[in-house]
Amino acid sequence: MDANALNIPQPDGAMDVKLWLRLLSCVNLIETELRQRMREQFASTLPRFDMLAQLDRFPDGIKMGELSRLMLVTGGNVTGLADSLEKEGMAARVYDPSDRRSCRVKITASGKKQFDQMATAHQRWLNELMSGLPEAEKAHLYTLLGAFKQQLPTA
Amino acid sequence: MDANALNIPQPDGAMDVKLWLRLLSCVNLIETELRQRMREQFASTLPRFDMLAQLDRFPDGIKMGELSRLMLVTGGNVTGLADSLEKEGMAARVYDPSDRRSCRVKITASGKKQFDQMATAHQRWLNELMSGLPEAEKAHLYTLLGAFKQQLPTA
Repeated sequence: MDANALNIPQPDGAMDVKLWLRLLSCVNLIETELRQRMREQFASTLPRFDMLAQLDRFPDGIKMGELSRLMLVTGGNVTGLADSLEKEGMAARVYDPSDRRSCRVKITASGKKQFDQMATAHQRWLNELMSGLPEAEKAHLYTLLGAFKQQLPTA
Repeated sequence: MDANALNIPQPDGAMDVKLWLRLLSCVNLIETELRQRMREQFASTLPRFDMLAQLDRFPDGIKMGELSRLMLVTGGNVTGLADSLEKEGMAARVYDPSDRRSCRVKITASGKKQFDQMATAHQRWLNELMSGLPEAEKAHLYTLLGAFKQQLPTA
């Protein structure tokens, strides 16, 4: 007979669920705000911003598979997003002359300009959303989340 | 001329972005694991589990609008999910005899049974995923996230 069957309270087990729900809820509250502001102020979406952010890190371009792996915001179809950014002149596909099957996506000057504006606003929004927490507590939270992340399985 | 124009380092501002990305990344890693296990072991999805969890909290039923507001996992069409749970006999729509326009959704005995199995597994998965963090650090993280959540705008 296990502890569950004996109805013994399991503080640890329940704590993990509570911790998970609180994490999820914090992320949802912030994401809802960011999504709304991105739409209102840039007529854009979070997956789109996320893709520009990843492209911005690789000025020489990045393969689609790698791009997809790096993206933090789910819900965006990576190929569809890249197509749409390319159509608007914010990204370009670059083909390797020695291997036509290999293709990388690259941010354009216009994409970079748009991304810089978005990133500045994005940071300002986060500063505003997090202004109620003292810096020392933020630093502590950051450290604890680092230890937490470290022990998670890497997807 | 503001601090940005003078190119003065702004540690606080950048810290908020780093904290946000770390939060997002922890949630993504856990969500990816939970999503996969929910699919493999219950042929189900997280929005579906989330809806059953909310319905389970209101044995007398809950209005659709309220249900939608309470759900933590986005991406699921609430009406579509409710339709699908109803079709499988896990939820039922209940009409108010005095007001046919007012409808509540209620979990069925079969839905409750399925949810209990899912919830037990869900907690076990979280226990496993978080087993590498000492209990004291979990409790601390939970408290800090509480303060963090408290100061966020409620969406």
